[in-house]
Amino acid sequence: MNAPDKGLRGKMVNAFDPATASGLKESTRRLVERRGKLLGPAYRLFYNDPVEVKSAKGVILYDFDGKDYLDAYNNVVSVGHCHPRVVEAISAQLRTVCTHTRYLQEGILDYAEDLLSTFGGSIQHVMFTCTGSEANDLAVRIAKHYTGKSGVIITDEAYHGNSDLTSGFSPSLGAYSPLGTWVRRVPAPDSYRVPHESMGRWMADNVAAQIRDLERRGEGLAAFIADSIFSSDGIFAQPTDLLEPVKQVVHAAGGLFIADEVQSGFARTGDKMWGYQRHGVSPDIVTMGKPMGNGFPVAAVALSPHIVQEFGRDTRYFNTFGGNTVAMAAAQAVLDVIRDEGLLENAARVGLAIQAGFKDLAKQYEQIGDVRGSGLYIGVELVKSRTTKEPDAKTAAALVNGLRARRVLISATGLHANTLKIRPPLVFSESDADRLLTEARDVFRSL
Amino acid sequence: MNAPDKGLRGKMVNAFDPATASGLKESTRRLVERRGKLLGPAYRLFYNDPVEVKSAKGVILYDFDGKDYLDAYNNVVSVGHCHPRVVEAISAQLRTVCTHTRYLQEGILDYAEDLLSTFGGSIQHVMFTCTGSEANDLAVRIAKHYTGKSGVIITDEAYHGNSDLTSGFSPSLGAYSPLGTWVRRVPAPDSYRVPHESMGRWMADNVAAQIRDLERRGEGLAAFIADSIFSSDGIFAQPTDLLEPVKQVVHAAGGLFIADEVQSGFARTGDKMWGYQRHGVSPDIVTMGKPMGNGFPVAAVALSPHIVQEFGRDTRYFNTFGGNTVAMAAAQAVLDVIRDEGLLENAARVGLAIQAGFKDLAKQYEQIGDVRGSGLYIGVELVKSRTTKEPDAKTAAALVNGLRARRVLISATGLHANTLKIRPPLVFSESDADRLLTEARDVFRSL
Repeated sequence: MNAPDKGLRGKMVNAFDPATASGLKESTRRLVERRGKLLGPAYRLFYNDPVEVKSAKGVILYDFDGKDYLDAYNNVVSVGHCHPRVVEAISAQLRTVCTHTRYLQEGILDYAEDLLSTFGGSIQHVMFTCTGSEANDLAVRIAKHYTGKSGVIITDEAYHGNSDLTSGFSPSLGAYSPLGTWVRRVPAPDSYRVPHESMGRWMADNVAAQIRDLERRGEGLAAFIADSIFSSDGIFAQPTDLLEPVKQVVHAAGGLFIADEVQSGFARTGDKMWGYQRHGVSPDIVTMGKPMGNGFPVAAVALSPHIVQEFGRDTRYFNTFGGNTVAMAAAQAVLDVIRDEGLLENAARVGLAIQAGFKDLAKQYEQIGDVRGSGLYIGVELVKSRTTKEPDAKTAAALVNGLRARRVLISATGLHANTLKIRPPLVFSESDADRLLTEARDVFRSL
Repeated sequence: MNAPDKGLRGKMVNAFDPATASGLKESTRRLVERRGKLLGPAYRLFYNDPVEVKSAKGVILYDFDGKDYLDAYNNVVSVGHCHPRVVEAISAQLRTVCTHTRYLQEGILDYAEDLLSTFGGSIQHVMFTCTGSEANDLAVRIAKHYTGKSGVIITDEAYHGNSDLTSGFSPSLGAYSPLGTWVRRVPAPDSYRVPHESMGRWMADNVAAQIRDLERRGEGLAAFIADSIFSSDGIFAQPTDLLEPVKQVVHAAGGLFIADEVQSGFARTGDKMWGYQRHGVSPDIVTMGKPMGNGFPVAAVALSPHIVQEFGRDTRYFNTFGGNTVAMAAAQAVLDVIRDEGLLENAARVGLAIQAGFKDLAKQYEQIGDVRGSGLYIGVELVKSRTTKEPDAKTAAALVNGLRARRVLISATGLHANTLKIRPPLVFSESDADRLLTEARDVFRSL
């Protein structure tokens, strides 16, 4: 393998480049400068022309000039920006009591019971953290304790978190962010290039080969971890018969199968409440976060009881804010809204409409190589040629920034940053989809 | 060294023992059982008779029978339970917009500027996380990137977090929670037993010896990290000339000095806004969390710009909820309240009154070996004999649970769990201190 291009140090898909700040309007440029001075060099902004947000409602963000932006990207405010039921649930609990899990509380138990009822399989305990990174960190920590092994297998461009442990198995942080010596990677199930037939076997064989390598180095396998939508690899939602064969080779080696549902969970994929359920697999551990509190920091690890027995005996887990009364009120409100407003069904229906719209555009624009996804997690892959399937990052960036100029917010993903990532709040309507598609058509026309 | 007592697996100071559940009233027992079933074995409750909380205001918690509990323990709700200014700031921001740092926002910059003005020294950047664990994890991750080394030096019973990395240098999690091979420990500055004269030299010499050991193993030193109140070691607030000599040997070895202010920060110690400032030392990195948002999950790493340059070039840091608009509104409100209500001064004044009260009790009760602390972070060490200074955990537990029976909430700390930990919200008044002392006197009388 060649050394990574030094020009790629710290690069991020769809990041603002501070070297271009002089082209911005004066007030934006001042904010960007002040930001660099106060927050330092590790922070990134979106878009060639970063957006300054003043307020939001539903799927619309507003800037300080009163202009509205269609949010086709944010998966945290999943039930819609400033959803009144969530705002009121948090505010009411804040006025009542905000305290931690070392006092008895009924709310955390009611929510735990409600949440656990959505998994099935052997998942019967839930532990609360504040972020998806903390959830994945804890999941792998428990897996290491349970197996006595340290190896972790992931897909090529996976992202699983920002802690020391999880950044060690998050190659999408870039070539200069160190991976752990105990990490092995397998190719993502690139449904645009890898034949679908026997793809599960192909993936399981790749995992098995990496397990053998981990065992030869004395690391052994603690866990295989993946998000079932393979988001940072480029969004691969089909086929859905991949993960069961993988789980079988992982179990045969004594490892655990962890479903990272931080992005694909909570009805996002339209088919099922959890992305892994589309694959008909029963994970040992499920992690979740982002949309869980619609922006309130709350996340969780749900697992089979036997996996955490020794961990719970040998040590303990306390997260000061994790599972506090307000976090639980936020999470309960979000789960209620997902059900009461039929957001799973909405994600399925509107997601299909968006895919259909881009497939329609593909008849006209050769650059669209593939349209894929599930529910409101959609990838549109751009290529230089449909024959060679050579990635076209330039067109992807033009689309992302062209849409931003037309006040529609999306991003791009994948190793080559050539796949449009469309992932709006779950309350996105058919008319929102129309606006997105109309503006996308305009940008294609202008290329 | 002897193998750790297997009976101590997973033990926690002042934890409820589920084996005693049969003695609880029916409704409490049912909640405890349900909790075990849903949350699993890694969770702990406080007190022999766990408290079920319904609501709270100021320094008072209420249970479902309408009984009031004086909160002399919780340092998260530092400006008081359900402080209206904080509740309103969070609620108003929730209604406006809740989004992340990849859009431009002025609030995060205003808060960053305000916060950074409290440090002095070379601390000029701040990065936001959600929890103190995430802050310490990121701080050490940056220190490893900066130094190219991996060694971490801590005090004997330190606690710095619950992530894989930070739990690896948190020995207070107990003898069966694994420490990293790259971790070295030095004795805490036990001001009750170690002579104060030249204590800084003594501590620096201990650190230097551990640095030499790390260097002989090829690890080298990434960082020394301590909270200036040495809370889980037993609360040692005096003397205050310890940390500068330590910093000098750490810097001589190329390592970084990290001040963990998660517990000692934000006016807690009464003397200064930050605990490390009591030692007149300038850290390379300052971490903070717990009281920062009065229960809203928000935490941070503040640091010297040169330390994060390479990290920011080689990788990036994004925390989905860290520094979001609502977190910043909460944090700004807390900082405003600390200043507007003079809570630093209050902590100093009421803290002295509490210490004076326990010193008074010590005239009567030989079990009180030492009363110490700073501001509203107070330790009362209980011993079997003032001559031998042998720790008396039994009396400490009797005090903690006796006070709980009288509806006053405190806890205990230190390796031997024999030091009462008194750490109320900063709005604790002199009459609250009276109630605490009156009840404590009653418990002593009943022993």
